[in-house]
Amino acid sequence: MIRVGLLGAGRIGRIHGGNVAVSGRARLVAVADALADAARDLATALGADVRSADAIIAAADIDAVLICSPTDTHADLIEAAVRAGKAVFCEKPVDLDAGRIEACLRVVAASGQPLMIGFNRRFDPSFAEARRRILAGEIGPVEMVTILSRDPSPPPPSYVTRSGGLFRDMMIHDFDMARFLLGEEPVEVHAVASCLVDPGIGAAGDVDTAAVLLKTASGKIAQISNSRRASYGYDQRFEVHGATGMVSARNVPVTTVEIATVAGFRTDPAQPFFLERYAAAYRAELDHFLGCVADGTAPSPSGEDGLKAQKLADAATLSHQTGAPVRLKA
Amino acid sequence: MIRVGLLGAGRIGRIHGGNVAVSGRARLVAVADALADAARDLATALGADVRSADAIIAAADIDAVLICSPTDTHADLIEAAVRAGKAVFCEKPVDLDAGRIEACLRVVAASGQPLMIGFNRRFDPSFAEARRRILAGEIGPVEMVTILSRDPSPPPPSYVTRSGGLFRDMMIHDFDMARFLLGEEPVEVHAVASCLVDPGIGAAGDVDTAAVLLKTASGKIAQISNSRRASYGYDQRFEVHGATGMVSARNVPVTTVEIATVAGFRTDPAQPFFLERYAAAYRAELDHFLGCVADGTAPSPSGEDGLKAQKLADAATLSHQTGAPVRLKA
Amino acid sequence: MIRVGLLGAGRIGRIHGGNVAVSGRARLVAVADALADAARDLATALGADVRSADAIIAAADIDAVLICSPTDTHADLIEAAVRAGKAVFCEKPVDLDAGRIEACLRVVAASGQPLMIGFNRRFDPSFAEARRRILAGEIGPVEMVTILSRDPSPPPPSYVTRSGGLFRDMMIHDFDMARFLLGEEPVEVHAVASCLVDPGIGAAGDVDTAAVLLKTASGKIAQISNSRRASYGYDQRFEVHGATGMVSARNVPVTTVEIATVAGFRTDPAQPFFLERYAAAYRAELDHFLGCVADGTAPSPSGEDGLKAQKLADAATLSHQTGAPVRLKA
Amino acid sequence: MIRVGLLGAGRIGRIHGGNVAVSGRARLVAVADALADAARDLATALGADVRSADAIIAAADIDAVLICSPTDTHADLIEAAVRAGKAVFCEKPVDLDAGRIEACLRVVAASGQPLMIGFNRRFDPSFAEARRRILAGEIGPVEMVTILSRDPSPPPPSYVTRSGGLFRDMMIHDFDMARFLLGEEPVEVHAVASCLVDPGIGAAGDVDTAAVLLKTASGKIAQISNSRRASYGYDQRFEVHGATGMVSARNVPVTTVEIATVAGFRTDPAQPFFLERYAAAYRAELDHFLGCVADGTAPSPSGEDGLKAQKLADAATLSHQTGAPVRLKA
Repeated sequence: MIRVGLLGAGRIGRIHGGNVAVSGRARLVAVADALADAARDLATALGADVRSADAIIAAADIDAVLICSPTDTHADLIEAAVRAGKAVFCEKPVDLDAGRIEACLRVVAASGQPLMIGFNRRFDPSFAEARRRILAGEIGPVEMVTILSRDPSPPPPSYVTRSGGLFRDMMIHDFDMARFLLGEEPVEVHAVASCLVDPGIGAAGDVDTAAVLLKTASGKIAQISNSRRASYGYDQRFEVHGATGMVSARNVPVTTVEIATVAGFRTDPAQPFFLERYAAAYRAELDHFLGCVADGTAPSPSGEDGLKAQKLADAATLSHQTGAPVRLKA
Repeated sequence: MIRVGLLGAGRIGRIHGGNVAVSGRARLVAVADALADAARDLATALGADVRSADAIIAAADIDAVLICSPTDTHADLIEAAVRAGKAVFCEKPVDLDAGRIEACLRVVAASGQPLMIGFNRRFDPSFAEARRRILAGEIGPVEMVTILSRDPSPPPPSYVTRSGGLFRDMMIHDFDMARFLLGEEPVEVHAVASCLVDPGIGAAGDVDTAAVLLKTASGKIAQISNSRRASYGYDQRFEVHGATGMVSARNVPVTTVEIATVAGFRTDPAQPFFLERYAAAYRAELDHFLGCVADGTAPSPSGEDGLKAQKLADAATLSHQTGAPVRLKA
Repeated sequence: MIRVGLLGAGRIGRIHGGNVAVSGRARLVAVADALADAARDLATALGADVRSADAIIAAADIDAVLICSPTDTHADLIEAAVRAGKAVFCEKPVDLDAGRIEACLRVVAASGQPLMIGFNRRFDPSFAEARRRILAGEIGPVEMVTILSRDPSPPPPSYVTRSGGLFRDMMIHDFDMARFLLGEEPVEVHAVASCLVDPGIGAAGDVDTAAVLLKTASGKIAQISNSRRASYGYDQRFEVHGATGMVSARNVPVTTVEIATVAGFRTDPAQPFFLERYAAAYRAELDHFLGCVADGTAPSPSGEDGLKAQKLADAATLSHQTGAPVRLKA
Repeated sequence: MIRVGLLGAGRIGRIHGGNVAVSGRARLVAVADALADAARDLATALGADVRSADAIIAAADIDAVLICSPTDTHADLIEAAVRAGKAVFCEKPVDLDAGRIEACLRVVAASGQPLMIGFNRRFDPSFAEARRRILAGEIGPVEMVTILSRDPSPPPPSYVTRSGGLFRDMMIHDFDMARFLLGEEPVEVHAVASCLVDPGIGAAGDVDTAAVLLKTASGKIAQISNSRRASYGYDQRFEVHGATGMVSARNVPVTTVEIATVAGFRTDPAQPFFLERYAAAYRAELDHFLGCVADGTAPSPSGEDGLKAQKLADAATLSHQTGAPVRLKA
């Protein structure tokens, strides 16, 4: 049994905590949160202790920590935890600044401890299966990746100002998926973006609608588009076109019910948001991390994956600002 | 060029006439109809003459006749036409009375002329392809056929009284499809029926909602259901379950457009009725008939196919009336 | 917290036990099983005691029992448990003999304790949603119900001999669904059945392919078909046709991945079998039972629902044996 | 009856000629083609004369000409025909050079004759319906257009050299669709392209895989992607995301047949190529042209639409060559 400490008892912390409890291979030992009530409620429900983050990191009875606290605490907590000999799972991103990420990853490397970054979408059963089929050669060499990703509704402008902007906050997941699906690093980034959904987002200095083209050294192309709003649920789809076929993964409807009337055939909206859409992904993600900790193997996606996605987000942000493509080293 | 005479310039006659004109292998020579205007309009549009039915049947410049006149004229016209040495295509049914059909088919057999019955659905590209795959062994031996067939809206009760009833007028198409898909003759018929759509139909002595079970000697089962009303268009589907797979054929939507909104995902209704749904089937059906006339091969479905479907319709009618299954000779 | 005892630690018992553990409203106190290892493994995993069935039924620290033991023990265990003042959830069927069920239900009624029967499909999110829409009037009055239900592969003939036969063992779920969807009791049952899948099943006196027509007093029709084999997974679908629309519920594919190649577009098979297909249904089912126990309301489906489905299965068995329809009292 | 002359009896000329014949509102008077046999065969089949292109343009018994000859003849023929007082339908493009198009359109404007350009996709029933729903406000203001367009297989490199390149030869249709769907002119074009399908295309100086981002003055975004190869048929899809919904139009499968086996559920490939996929579009397109000629209204898409699409293709070509976005005047 792997003994787990949880840093952060918010929405995503509660998901991971519950998944530890039913994993069959780990035990949730302690929970920390700046809000005492949140920590206590979660700990009680799952039979764990409440401790401070420092105490969890220092604890002799804890093998691994899950970092689900605010973004600006991630890098410091990762460094402290790996120095204390803990295996670490951290929600994305390590930091909004690529230089800070690099410094943190050097500490992780020096520690020899495993670090996994929470790009949950890689573990979605459909997305993971699509990639397995690409790797199995079912569509031949990949030529073009198309990722369509839309949130159900925009965040408040106040959130936007501390988010790093759409490319770093929202599209970063798609940059990771593009790398996952292309199987090759992008070297060129063209971004186009607008504020069409909420003028408050524009006033806060961000965009809410964006499209990006990525190109790899061998000429593979990825197109990613984002909107902060979709009336029909959380829209999460991609398709990968290869030399001998195409593989795609679609949305999951709320139910399979179809109504036929004089207006035609109507099926359900997509799942409302990420907690429902990626429930199975979160279970599989944690299972992968726990398996790696148990086996002593390196988890994936790694800190390096986190850094590369961040650099693509930075490049897209710059491309949008300058109106010109940005070249990256492969 | 096969020289064609058309008996009947109503809705279905106009379809066949136009298909002759664009077939590339036949020429429409003459049109007959009890309504002079209908005959003249169609003849003008397609560059044909107006003649009487008798004149068309007797004509030396006509090789084949298409019988699209009212049902109660079919058997007499078939007999006259084959006696005059014409190849005959006749809309279903030959007659509402099986004995009359048998007598007519004896005349046809004696004449040596080809007779094809217009079970158009066999020529629907999707239905025909489904059967090709069954014959190719893609689903293994057939075990169960499910046919769902619903008209968009009920006919007037006045029509019902001279139609022979739902089983002979509407489900007869499905009996033919069941035989087409089972590949074996049914020997047992269980019918259940109700009047749920229009009390006027019940008052006219008919039903508007019905389900039938057919069983073959080897134990294969077909289930057919009909309704005289479907809010979402002309509903025409089947699925065939076999030992190693299932093949199904679905409705054709009006367009492929899909709208996604907060209410979910909505696609178009099915095609409104048979003229749209089976437009391609009518073309393929006529093409088959013309090809058989050109090659001197026997067209299919034959008069015998028409008779067998009629006997299943009679059996279903009897089963509904008696509340007991009806056994047929294989 | 409702204190729960589990009788039976087999495949379905483990499902319910796990769902108690994560329910948030109940605690699994004890597990019983004739196989000591099975009981111990499950109890250990879920933090419960191992006790005998008798001890669980008699226990003062247990409020409700879940009966997941072999069918021939159900009626006796239900009677003992309700007499001991326990709320009871029992997997279907109460018994294979309708008379024994009636006797058992009299004991339950006398006890005043709640009894819920495990017709899990009513709690499938899609099936339940379809019914909600029917009740909301979205398709108008129900006219025809079509249920297609196929197991992925046949059970061994040895199972068949003690199962009560296909109608009582497999189609009973569909009889319950037909009642659930029709909203009115069937009064007429026509069954047709064959042995097409496995001759060993025929040798054991049972069938593996069957179709049934049900008719209610007001003329509504249900058609149910079953096969003991489906190459493409566990096939569980229905559609309900009403005066103003149709509602259907489809299979759940393993993933949403679609591959497009020269062979066309290919999506995943259906979920392999009931544990995967109805995972969400089992959670919702238990949640309903626990909610009723907590609130003191009557759970549904009730013992009476179990009895009515059993009588339809008996009627279908008789109809198949006699080759004639069977009439039931409404 | 509008009297029509056809210039060009190749693949697309035969389509238009046949559609004239069955239009009910026009008569095909004469056909011209550099290949005498092609002209004669088509004229015979459709009951028309064979004449030279000059004779058709000069003819007093012809009202309208359809220009289906090679691209490099289009501008000259348009000018001659409008000067001779003919209504003109011309396949795209007017010319590969935007300056030549502008000169030609000045001649057309001076003549007062109608000119329609053959952007057939606007008349696809599904695409046209999607736009009707956008105009009807069903998805709110348009925010992002995504067009996916792939040919079934690459043309020979010899074709590529005289085609003007992928952006002018293939993507020009998508530029027209983007304008059609955006409802606003793009002012910014980013192109990324590669040669991944056939090295011979690269050797001929062209690309076979490309993606383009367009942005309008108000910030609407369109993303277009093309490949010269798709294993699963002619891939022609788009989706339009708006403030309150999304509308999409999908491929048309060859049939509606679905096969379910242990490998999953398989449906047909998309229609093989444009003749099948856009058969209904070609009929509707000609019908629109004939209707405009009959009514004296201006047909759409106009020569100006042809010019604007060409300018987008030029801009995309330049953007690909320079690696930088190209700005256009609105």
